[in-house]
Amino acid sequence: MILMNISILLIIVEMVIPISAWDNGLLRTPPMGWLSWLRFTCEINCEQYPNSCINEKLYKDMIDRIAEDGYLQVGYKTVNIDDCWMEKKRDPKTKQLVADRKRFPYGIKHLVEYGRERNVSVGIYEDIGTKTCAGFPGIDNHEQIDAKTFSEWGVDSIKMDGCFALINEYNQTYPNFRKALEKQEHRIAYSCSWPAYIANNSVPDDVYEVIKENCNYWRNYDDIVDSWESVKKIILFYGSKNKQFKKFHGPGGWFDPDMLLIGNNGLSLEQSKTQMNFWSIWSAPLMMSADLRRITPEFKKILQNKELISINQDRDGRMASLIYKTDKIQIWTKKLAASAEGEPSSYVVLYFYMYSLGIDLNIRFNVSKLIPREEIQDEYLVFDLHDADTVMKIISSEENLELRVPSSGGSRIVKLVPVLKNENLFETNEDTLDNFCDY
Amino acid sequence: MILMNISILLIIVEMVIPISAWDNGLLRTPPMGWLSWLRFTCEINCEQYPNSCINEKLYKDMIDRIAEDGYLQVGYKTVNIDDCWMEKKRDPKTKQLVADRKRFPYGIKHLVEYGRERNVSVGIYEDIGTKTCAGFPGIDNHEQIDAKTFSEWGVDSIKMDGCFALINEYNQTYPNFRKALEKQEHRIAYSCSWPAYIANNSVPDDVYEVIKENCNYWRNYDDIVDSWESVKKIILFYGSKNKQFKKFHGPGGWFDPDMLLIGNNGLSLEQSKTQMNFWSIWSAPLMMSADLRRITPEFKKILQNKELISINQDRDGRMASLIYKTDKIQIWTKKLAASAEGEPSSYVVLYFYMYSLGIDLNIRFNVSKLIPREEIQDEYLVFDLHDADTVMKIISSEENLELRVPSSGGSRIVKLVPVLKNENLFETNEDTLDNFCDY
Repeated sequence: MILMNISILLIIVEMVIPISAWDNGLLRTPPMGWLSWLRFTCEINCEQYPNSCINEKLYKDMIDRIAEDGYLQVGYKTVNIDDCWMEKKRDPKTKQLVADRKRFPYGIKHLVEYGRERNVSVGIYEDIGTKTCAGFPGIDNHEQIDAKTFSEWGVDSIKMDGCFALINEYNQTYPNFRKALEKQEHRIAYSCSWPAYIANNSVPDDVYEVIKENCNYWRNYDDIVDSWESVKKIILFYGSKNKQFKKFHGPGGWFDPDMLLIGNNGLSLEQSKTQMNFWSIWSAPLMMSADLRRITPEFKKILQNKELISINQDRDGRMASLIYKTDKIQIWTKKLAASAEGEPSSYVVLYFYMYSLGIDLNIRFNVSKLIPREEIQDEYLVFDLHDADTVMKIISSEENLELRVPSSGGSRIVKLVPVLKNENLFETNEDTLDNFCDY
Repeated sequence: MILMNISILLIIVEMVIPISAWDNGLLRTPPMGWLSWLRFTCEINCEQYPNSCINEKLYKDMIDRIAEDGYLQVGYKTVNIDDCWMEKKRDPKTKQLVADRKRFPYGIKHLVEYGRERNVSVGIYEDIGTKTCAGFPGIDNHEQIDAKTFSEWGVDSIKMDGCFALINEYNQTYPNFRKALEKQEHRIAYSCSWPAYIANNSVPDDVYEVIKENCNYWRNYDDIVDSWESVKKIILFYGSKNKQFKKFHGPGGWFDPDMLLIGNNGLSLEQSKTQMNFWSIWSAPLMMSADLRRITPEFKKILQNKELISINQDRDGRMASLIYKTDKIQIWTKKLAASAEGEPSSYVVLYFYMYSLGIDLNIRFNVSKLIPREEIQDEYLVFDLHDADTVMKIISSEENLELRVPSSGGSRIVKLVPVLKNENLFETNEDTLDNFCDY
């Protein structure tokens, strides 16, 4: 069956249920930056791998690339250290964590200053248990010292992992560190791996409520690895939990489906677009993890897609809604913040096709099935978000939105912008409609 | 562990056990061409998909692309029709198969002639049972008529599928069609899907002996789909059966791991190189299945890599040997035909790294572990087969061959060419050594 049986399509009205986030004022939009784990993991042999071991040079190189290669301008602004940055033991006198003396000879504060001079902030990694996942010192009851250390160093975010700790104590240990952070002068965004360690990734609402009260974002699924299978599993998982996640996701508190693989070896170009499309409509943290010194232009273009980033950074920060699914196809929509009080909202529509055989698929849905009845407008401008300089077409609420979607994990993403009544398109939108006659 | 424990590495001496192939004189080197299934499957709705349905235009377009875009020059010479080309019923009088009258208005013979004018041959598809897999007419006891029809049409190869047939009768039905082919004037290469339908892909030697006596090549595993997972499964399967397959694989009779995905949506660039590398060292049929009208240059370059194709088409046609494996790494070697009787052979070495996390891996093995002791020469020129214009280096049999291998399904492939004693490299190999000083 090529065309969808749209009669079984479900429209889920966007319900905003306010659930309070930790009110540290940070991350009112999802964080954007770079995190070393996926690509560089825990390689500490700098003799054999001088350009890709975990050391000061690596993070400085990434700060440079972010500052100089256009990433900063589109919103990526934090370079995040992951595991394996420390000495194997705390300072015996002060009990402070110490950066590896060979690999970070000038310490983390120096790295933070290097970043600040380039308008790039630095994030750091620690673990809520006795050891980090790779065996370096964990918090181990040093919340106060560590929060103070991080604050003094000036890091802007902390990823708190959950290895070597009792999961049933997370509801004390993670909040304890949040309280320690609150005592510091410097405000630090707090990423909690807490729900990622809960069995079967099945986290009840009351636990997510506590997580949201304590954390700015939270990993809640298996570590991503550099393969399409891994991305697909995350998409299916986020689809299966969509109703729950929508309730908790929003400014100040974000579900984190893990790093962007884009620019590494595991995804094809279409699959890379698909990951960026999903992370954007989910308003998920955009954490790159490619070697930005060697990335090729087609992947850089995806990561720097301003249209997608503006969807991701939409001020309402809604998690998109899964409105239709089969084994091969999913349709998601995201309501964007209205341009002004009382104005109708634009919607983003994503068609996703995961079947790994055959030709690209023409998928079509009636616009009236994509946008809730209470909100639908008579006409929309349709923008392809990977080629948004021109309007694809004008579509009425009675028409079908038909898009050709690449197979094997491809997707298409468009924005539907309401045409205001009495608006004369060809006078008011001259720029965007330059090429409209070509269609 | 980054470096291999080479002490457990096994050298398998190349044993050539002659097993007779069907002696129709065809396919003394593996077939090279294009097959429609992976990309175009059984789309027969030409109104909705005018450029990608199974019809005359599709195959003519591919003949044109092969003839005009450089594929023919490097060895791709057959455009193979797959399922869904027929009318739903045989001709009621002649009992001949009939091409779909709407989609192939001038019939198959016309298509064959179109190909011949461009030096491209045409292959066709049929099924040994009562119906093809998609439900079109199967052989169903029409061996003689069908072999005669195909011969009259002038097709140069036939892919014989195994749906809707009794598997325990394959050892009669497949040979029966071979006998029918032998009676025809026009010689037709015979591809048998026979072993692909045998439970668990576990085929005893005596069955492969019969298959080899009857068929020119044979699919023996699940259909490939457009994903890295699928390629990886095939690589692991071919590794697990390597000793058996080497016994039967060779001129006139080839194991067929199925189509090349390269140029579609499912593989990254490095994974695409890996598929081409493996299919080349296996001397496997090289059947493209991308839309050659829309393929991008980087994938076309992989498909047209002359060095890899010459490895694939090596006149001895050996299946490569898996000489080392872990969960993350495999090392394969392939002995090439000697340039002259008594001369030492060149070897191709493939390092494969399938771990989906972290940085590219430096893999190193001592040359003495890669080439059998009886054959090893003092020195080798090393050529990177994806950049073979220059010699990478000269390496002695005592040295390590160290290559940096991309993660997530990446691989590196080099050719080791013996340096003949008393050979003055810098005089006799001036062309290939132009840039040697740069290393």
